[in-house]
Amino acid sequence: MFITLEGGDSVGKTTQAGMLEEWLTGEGREVVRTREPGGTPLGVEVRRLLLHGGDEIGAVDPRAEALLYAADRAQHIAKVVRPAIERGAVVVQDRYIDSSLAYQGAGRVLDVDEVRRISEWAVGGLWPDVTVLFDLAPEIAAARRSSRDDDRLEAERQEFHEAVRAAYHGLAVASPERFLVVDASGTPEEIHAIVRARVAERLAAR
Amino acid sequence: MFITLEGGDSVGKTTQAGMLEEWLTGEGREVVRTREPGGTPLGVEVRRLLLHGGDEIGAVDPRAEALLYAADRAQHIAKVVRPAIERGAVVVQDRYIDSSLAYQGAGRVLDVDEVRRISEWAVGGLWPDVTVLFDLAPEIAAARRSSRDDDRLEAERQEFHEAVRAAYHGLAVASPERFLVVDASGTPEEIHAIVRARVAERLAAR
Repeated sequence: MFITLEGGDSVGKTTQAGMLEEWLTGEGREVVRTREPGGTPLGVEVRRLLLHGGDEIGAVDPRAEALLYAADRAQHIAKVVRPAIERGAVVVQDRYIDSSLAYQGAGRVLDVDEVRRISEWAVGGLWPDVTVLFDLAPEIAAARRSSRDDDRLEAERQEFHEAVRAAYHGLAVASPERFLVVDASGTPEEIHAIVRARVAERLAAR
Repeated sequence: MFITLEGGDSVGKTTQAGMLEEWLTGEGREVVRTREPGGTPLGVEVRRLLLHGGDEIGAVDPRAEALLYAADRAQHIAKVVRPAIERGAVVVQDRYIDSSLAYQGAGRVLDVDEVRRISEWAVGGLWPDVTVLFDLAPEIAAARRSSRDDDRLEAERQEFHEAVRAAYHGLAVASPERFLVVDASGTPEEIHAIVRARVAERLAAR
């Protein structure tokens, strides 16, 4: 089983991944927790290039960036996710194709249908069994991380985060069978109970 | 004007690129000589990952590899080739999309149409004005580099090189306006005269 966790920054994905892992492990399941980008040694290098290339690399063209993320994804699915699924593990992954689609859709630099096509090719058409979308108003997410980030920069980004949220809603509406949309303003325990119910139902149906 | 040089290894591309550059520079043209992969700082890093990643990276998935090459290409076209063409320079480039198509077509791991689609997206649909295919029987090319490479390995690769050559022929037949197929068994001067005539004709037609 392949579960992905999606949503903007600071919506609680990492906390929920940990609670999901703890519960599934307690149920006797092997759990592989992973993330994109950076879930393989190649991915770590790609991420380093994109985040810390700086003066050495210069500005990265948007298409080059999208292709580097797709390469990371191809490697990650081939070397980590597929082998785990094939041996019966539950894969709990922070971000996947939906992240690329939501962020590109919000940024409007690249054609989203092309980004989808390239991502699907990269992973050989592997889509998750369950995608949990942690939905939270951007101002609440921003307040959660206000101690970490610069406030002025945050305000400038507000419009972009709204667009990301709207793009995620569009993806969820288009694939209701796959998506579980959770109000992420609740307590971690409330949210976990909702996620657990959906995952338990899917596991039971197998 | 955008000129690409294609063909297997050791067919004389580098020698011809040098002669072409010398002639064009003498004609008062700005010439940008470049290559794939590795024509940008990002590309150098990507190339290093693919060629020297070794134990650190592990085996790279074929799709991940194709996407990394496409990322290098996107960056190279956006940062080097397009700006040069736009300021009126002549770009002389060692290998481009046709290399990906010929080598993937010969290797038969990935679907060539998908590789073409991704490459075209990477470069925003930029195709060369002239592509010179240096055509040479693989056994002659092998003899040229016999002092450099291991003979046994070379023999094992012969079949693959034949398939690459056939794939190049297929590409040339499909785009006769763009391709100039040159018999690369001639002397450098003979070959250069043929290449120069075609390029001069194209430059005069502008």
